[in-house]
Amino acid sequence: MTDQPGKAVVLLSGGLDSATVLAMARSEGFECHALSIRYGQRHAVELQAAVTLALALGAADHRTVAVDLAAIGGSALTDPDIPVPEAATTGIPVTYVPARNSLFLSIALGYAETLGAQDIFIGANAVDYSGYPDCRPAFIAAFETLANLATKAGIEGKRFHIHAPLLDLGKAEIIREGIRLGIDYGLTLSCYQPDAEGRACGRCDSCRLRRQGFIDAGVPDPTRYR
Amino acid sequence: MTDQPGKAVVLLSGGLDSATVLAMARSEGFECHALSIRYGQRHAVELQAAVTLALALGAADHRTVAVDLAAIGGSALTDPDIPVPEAATTGIPVTYVPARNSLFLSIALGYAETLGAQDIFIGANAVDYSGYPDCRPAFIAAFETLANLATKAGIEGKRFHIHAPLLDLGKAEIIREGIRLGIDYGLTLSCYQPDAEGRACGRCDSCRLRRQGFIDAGVPDPTRYR
Repeated sequence: MTDQPGKAVVLLSGGLDSATVLAMARSEGFECHALSIRYGQRHAVELQAAVTLALALGAADHRTVAVDLAAIGGSALTDPDIPVPEAATTGIPVTYVPARNSLFLSIALGYAETLGAQDIFIGANAVDYSGYPDCRPAFIAAFETLANLATKAGIEGKRFHIHAPLLDLGKAEIIREGIRLGIDYGLTLSCYQPDAEGRACGRCDSCRLRRQGFIDAGVPDPTRYR
Repeated sequence: MTDQPGKAVVLLSGGLDSATVLAMARSEGFECHALSIRYGQRHAVELQAAVTLALALGAADHRTVAVDLAAIGGSALTDPDIPVPEAATTGIPVTYVPARNSLFLSIALGYAETLGAQDIFIGANAVDYSGYPDCRPAFIAAFETLANLATKAGIEGKRFHIHAPLLDLGKAEIIREGIRLGIDYGLTLSCYQPDAEGRACGRCDSCRLRRQGFIDAGVPDPTRYR
């Protein structure tokens, strides 16, 4: 971390986790440049939530970069021929998007370098990393190493830091932290298959983890279900 | 490397280097899935060259993924307000695109995982890595480490290999190897600011390196200059 928090790039999906990370980065004093990725996800309505959240949580600005991952397929989140599962699964779920966090962090890294920022925040978390390989601490550490080799800034002696402050937190802990920081979680959208009005299905993996998180945290669930 | 060459993803820009890499991967017996990235580069006409090259060099297929890097700016190659230099420069050139190879390799990694491929080829080379940080051997090695942590395939014990066979070659050596493999370099386009017909300027960094390469290799330069 830099001595004085400066600019940071914060990956913001519109979901609960990344909204919490944005609030945490702001509370640490960073000037937050929110970055959303439109990657061909079925649930693109979450990007509308990201716009609202960036404003509500005091981001300095917000940009959306489009990447046409549907061109290479391979995930229930981008391929309309693979259904989103509605029952608990074991192992790595079909909603896994190959190399997604590598891609998101690479775009964030390019943006950070452009801005002169050295801090990048991502909402990878403990609940996810039971299933997604690119939500594990070793992955985050490897990306930080890469970032410092990959860039002009790295060669010039600046150090990039990849912050994943949710890594060791369960969903209920994340929610409690966000409530403490004043987040209105009614603005966030976690569902993998929301309707056009942004109402959640209540049945996909992401909805189930989120709903249980509110129960475990002992706070009312503000999610709009359809 | 796998014992039997199987599928490989080959990053193909339409330029001289990546065309040579595709020919090399084919000569090693790989079933090559060519991948081009439309990243907001001014010289998008190079993508037309990539289509021609994929066919001419026997790729099994060819896909183009669009990434709107212009949304985050920062390079002469994507930002129309930064001119492409036409004289030799020292240090890292303004044509450096922040984190470009991290991004390209991340997309290639996602595609490889989708295909069940474990081999990824990229045309990073010695001439470039005097200027571009993400063309150095340490960067390529760090990405290979990342790839094996980032993916479902990596968790399941498959190993990804990032091949950068041009790393230690000068431009003339690359050209000699490509000629040996039968490449028609007249199909390739290296210029950062070609005209709409794909004719090269002859003055940008990339043109000057290429032109000198043909001179040093002692072979006729088939480039169409405007």
